[in-house]
Amino acid sequence: SASYKVAVLSGDGIGPEVMAEALKVLDKVQTEFGFSLELNHFDVGGIAIDNHGTPLPATTLAGCEAADAVLFGSVGGPKWENLPPNEQPERGALLPLRGHFKLFCNMRPARIYQGLEGFSPLRADISARGFDIVCMRELTGGIYFGQPKGREGTGANEKAFDTEVYHRFEIERIARLAFEAARGRRGIVTSVDKANVLQASILWREVVIEVAKDYPDVTLNHIYIDNATMQLIKDPSQFDVMLCSNLFGDIISDEMAMITGSMGLLPSVSLNDKGFGLYEPAGGSAPDIAGQGIANPIAQILSAALMLRYSFKQEEAAQAIERAVSETLAAGYFSGDLYSNDAAHPVQTTAQMGEQIASRI
Amino acid sequence: SASYKVAVLSGDGIGPEVMAEALKVLDKVQTEFGFSLELNHFDVGGIAIDNHGTPLPATTLAGCEAADAVLFGSVGGPKWENLPPNEQPERGALLPLRGHFKLFCNMRPARIYQGLEGFSPLRADISARGFDIVCMRELTGGIYFGQPKGREGTGANEKAFDTEVYHRFEIERIARLAFEAARGRRGIVTSVDKANVLQASILWREVVIEVAKDYPDVTLNHIYIDNATMQLIKDPSQFDVMLCSNLFGDIISDEMAMITGSMGLLPSVSLNDKGFGLYEPAGGSAPDIAGQGIANPIAQILSAALMLRYSFKQEEAAQAIERAVSETLAAGYFSGDLYSNDAAHPVQTTAQMGEQIASRI
Ligand SMILES: CC(C)[C@H](C(=O)O)[C@@H](O)C(=O)O
Ligand SMILES: CC(C)[C@H](C(=O)O)[C@@H](O)C(=O)O
Repeated sequence: SASYKVAVLSGDGIGPEVMAEALKVLDKVQTEFGFSLELNHFDVGGIAIDNHGTPLPATTLAGCEAADAVLFGSVGGPKWENLPPNEQPERGALLPLRGHFKLFCNMRPARIYQGLEGFSPLRADISARGFDIVCMRELTGGIYFGQPKGREGTGANEKAFDTEVYHRFEIERIARLAFEAARGRRGIVTSVDKANVLQASILWREVVIEVAKDYPDVTLNHIYIDNATMQLIKDPSQFDVMLCSNLFGDIISDEMAMITGSMGLLPSVSLNDKGFGLYEPAGGSAPDIAGQGIANPIAQILSAALMLRYSFKQEEAAQAIERAVSETLAAGYFSGDLYSNDAAHPVQTTAQMGEQIASRI
Repeated sequence: SASYKVAVLSGDGIGPEVMAEALKVLDKVQTEFGFSLELNHFDVGGIAIDNHGTPLPATTLAGCEAADAVLFGSVGGPKWENLPPNEQPERGALLPLRGHFKLFCNMRPARIYQGLEGFSPLRADISARGFDIVCMRELTGGIYFGQPKGREGTGANEKAFDTEVYHRFEIERIARLAFEAARGRRGIVTSVDKANVLQASILWREVVIEVAKDYPDVTLNHIYIDNATMQLIKDPSQFDVMLCSNLFGDIISDEMAMITGSMGLLPSVSLNDKGFGLYEPAGGSAPDIAGQGIANPIAQILSAALMLRYSFKQEEAAQAIERAVSETLAAGYFSGDLYSNDAAHPVQTTAQMGEQIASRI
């Protein structure tokens, strides 16, 4: 039977706690669906700084290289916040991983689950309309990796600079994936740019328009980033797939996550052109609640489901996990982040949520 | 008695309509407060393209140079949307005006007016807490004006690029104004950056921390742009002054405007180091409702008030306008954008709103 190697990078904060529940669920599906997973654990982020002096040790990178996919928890915390930016857990682990494996395609879905509209920070009549959006973010280009990047001069004229740069091929490949995704959804791609100011955005828009010609069945809209942050608040239901550069996707995907009001439910996937991927929850390491066993493990569990879908093509197993999550929520089981006084169902711990979900596979 | 020269650039869309009401109000205050305004009108934006072939004709620029301040309406509309980006009304008029007059300091206040909380797209319990924020946006630097900017190569490797660059002196002068503003308010500066990715943000943060030493009475916080867009939705009441680079300020100020739910009330000011300023509403040219006499003139009227305050030091006259606006709203007079079926007060036209306000001076 099929067997897959997974590099498990739990990281810091709530990472290890929520990862334990994802592994519980994966354990259940592999027996049910007849494939096997070989799990290998590696340090990443703050814990790797503590144990090995660097947020992304060579052994961790080698472990990821030897794997078929990376299941990532979260990194960072107050303990490492005063290190130089380059050495901090987030920057020192996530960006090199993305760059090394050329994970250019980042997909972050955000939707309002039925029954959870009340948690959205949007006005009741807006959240009642619901929304289901995927942010397609270019993840290895733009101002994150563009050269030159640096600092020069002294005194009042000292300057620091970064380069926003996009090549035609980089825009084309992420645009193509956005249109493909839209085909399996509501058929609308909204490309986010700042073409009234940025040269990189002008090229971005041109290439997206060209790619759109191969997808006559998909509607293409363009929106400026400033307007996009407004429209997401005013009427998120208008969006289906939002196609973004690296920086704009960073902003849009976080705003999207926030307006769901249930960030603990949101998974994400970062893929390269060989289908190798890194799967991680949209939220952060939440050091304020770490170690208490109260974090919501669903984002991590759904990230594992995406791994089965995109890297291992185990669609049935992925759907089984997603169904188990929906059923658990529908049955009224919530962790503290989504809890609002339901006498019949006391607030669930991280482990209890994991068990509820695993038991429904 | 004091006399000031104002270059009036009404522009496109609703610009001319709302400008007429601002001039009505200015007319009233100059007699009441004993100063005189010399108004000179110039074409800008789309209308300037139509009449002179360029969005910012030399006569308009010369008119602004000869003036003590610029009162700006809004530019742009569908008619000019298919021109090359550089020649479009917004980009071809606003950016050169900002650059030419070195208007590095852009202030955009956003607050929820009492009684208008229901218009906010945020959840009722969040908007009920209210908020009152000023975005201090650096307006002549960063990726808007940074060099090099361009396009190179052909085929799949064709690339387009922009440069995010900040000099120490640019950061210092806008930071200083942010701290000064905070002193007259709730005493909190939140500096928005992406110091975990951008070199320019690392310098930005360093300089802001240095400037803060001169303002021990002001609290300084730092927030990443992605988190800022989330926190503005989750709890805008936590913010007082938000200090932003050009690009991040573009995004944050629009998001701030949207969460008030009453964009038609928001003025803005762009100043240089001599106190010369350009004053304009936060909203756009709203071509969809132009020419119908239904636009809200308040943002334009409050922009005129800011002109009296910042460029002409006519504080009493500025306050008289602001009071008249508040009283008009409190009395239940609203234009269509803020109207919700009040039998006692029918929806007001643009001109009626202007008269209501002028009559209360
Ligand atoms: C931690 C940071 C470098 C990262 C980013 O900006 O990409 C994070 O915000 C994200 O969105 O994954
Ligand atoms: C029209 C555009 C160039 C401009 C900007 O990006 O600065 C506008 O969005 C603004 O905020 O004034």
